[in-house]
Amino acid sequence: MSIVREEIVEFYGGVQSDLCALFEEFDSTATFGVERWARPGGGGGTTRVLQGNGPLEKAAINVSAVSGAVPSKLSERLAEHANNFFATGISMIFHPRNPHAPTMHANLRYFETDTGAAWFGGGLDLTPHYLYESDATWFHRTLRDICGRHAVADYPAWKRDCDEYFFLPHRDEARGVGGIFYDHLTAELESVDTFQRELGQAIGDAYLPILERRVDMPYGSDQERWQLQRRGRYAEFNLAIDRGTKFGLETGAGTESVLASLPPRVRWDHDVTPEPGTPESTLIEVLVQPREWA
Amino acid sequence: MSIVREEIVEFYGGVQSDLCALFEEFDSTATFGVERWARPGGGGGTTRVLQGNGPLEKAAINVSAVSGAVPSKLSERLAEHANNFFATGISMIFHPRNPHAPTMHANLRYFETDTGAAWFGGGLDLTPHYLYESDATWFHRTLRDICGRHAVADYPAWKRDCDEYFFLPHRDEARGVGGIFYDHLTAELESVDTFQRELGQAIGDAYLPILERRVDMPYGSDQERWQLQRRGRYAEFNLAIDRGTKFGLETGAGTESVLASLPPRVRWDHDVTPEPGTPESTLIEVLVQPREWA
Repeated sequence: MSIVREEIVEFYGGVQSDLCALFEEFDSTATFGVERWARPGGGGGTTRVLQGNGPLEKAAINVSAVSGAVPSKLSERLAEHANNFFATGISMIFHPRNPHAPTMHANLRYFETDTGAAWFGGGLDLTPHYLYESDATWFHRTLRDICGRHAVADYPAWKRDCDEYFFLPHRDEARGVGGIFYDHLTAELESVDTFQRELGQAIGDAYLPILERRVDMPYGSDQERWQLQRRGRYAEFNLAIDRGTKFGLETGAGTESVLASLPPRVRWDHDVTPEPGTPESTLIEVLVQPREWA
Repeated sequence: MSIVREEIVEFYGGVQSDLCALFEEFDSTATFGVERWARPGGGGGTTRVLQGNGPLEKAAINVSAVSGAVPSKLSERLAEHANNFFATGISMIFHPRNPHAPTMHANLRYFETDTGAAWFGGGLDLTPHYLYESDATWFHRTLRDICGRHAVADYPAWKRDCDEYFFLPHRDEARGVGGIFYDHLTAELESVDTFQRELGQAIGDAYLPILERRVDMPYGSDQERWQLQRRGRYAEFNLAIDRGTKFGLETGAGTESVLASLPPRVRWDHDVTPEPGTPESTLIEVLVQPREWA
């Protein structure tokens, strides 16, 4: 038994369809578009973006399956020489309108080279603008419980890896309250595949209950301003630091698809530092000093 | 005769003071703050940011003079081995509120290593949201005329270098209508210094007349939306591509100072393509196919 890449592609496509339907029902004001794109070097993808006037200001759920000659910039980062590669993944982002509702990002991916290397990577992470401990706890416990059912999954290590990966060195703070992040899992691929299927099907369970309890909370222009400033940090991470964005842009995986993750509206005000004791300051405290949530 | 680094630092400080006074008079609703910062490894700078309700939505005019051990990431990019470096510069950005008024960026810099290497770099470039040919022509002719008075300056080559440098490969378009860009000028340093002094003193002449004829033009929410979308491209360039931003963040030159260049408000809407024949489309045409303006 071994990994069949077409089955992974099919699974990611199914997750995309299911989640689009789930979040369209939740938003109720707009639907996800469907844009298919082809990569000149081989393969392509389907970008699905929702941008409406409802609770989801912008959401994107994208799948891709690209292949061909290894791009030179990618080649430098591969441990061993390879001529051709295959990469498939599903990547998604939800930017809610309400500042009390957190942004959520998830990604599942599989990579192969023609020299026999193969690995999985993925993860989910939550980025609140205001800290609700119950949201962070729910999110992390959902992920911990899934990991607990699979010997190949290591929640404590992957939670730490997530805090380390989604980190802005120039700000000395984490992007959000984390989740799990795993990469380059080369062993026991069938078991990782099984784990990833359960994880993919649980994305709605991990996030939707949080959205439902936040999207109708009242807020004012000060909270909205803070949200847009925090989204500036999100854009800084995605554009200046994220390896996934770099990989996507370098492999020609569709610029609009890759950058669909960027927040719909952003502010960069100069030198924003919240007053101690405010809800804004409470958020910063957990970004500077990540906590255990599960 | 040789270059005296303290005199360059003093000159940049003078340009900062002069331009802050000039643009405060122009804006008339707000003043530039004064924030001094020290770099742990040596040196520091003064960040001056204006964020008001007038014609300048955000402007920053920053100087720095940093020195010390060469940071490892910088070391990789130096042609020869060096233990210590000195770098000073002035960097500025103007983000007007009116979508018809272009953003302008300028930077003058000087770099030295303890192994005897020394060079100047700099440039000015203009980023309109709507194309006014007379603005681009005025800006370029001002720069061409200054270059024409100095044998060390090469307007045609530096104009091309500017188009090449301020380019977003993932969008396949230039950031704006360019200007001049020069880097790593290691020969005839006294003459370059003289040229750069004239250039520094002409920044107001190159930009202010353009601002004055645009900032009172009427505009609607559609034009503003386009402006904010174009500013998204600006943020993409500064965060994902610009070497100056990378250098600043890597050398610990004050994150808020380095990122003061980011636009105050930005939009990322999915897959924005203007209709042919519109003013928005006319802008894109000159970004895809740079023109001669002088």
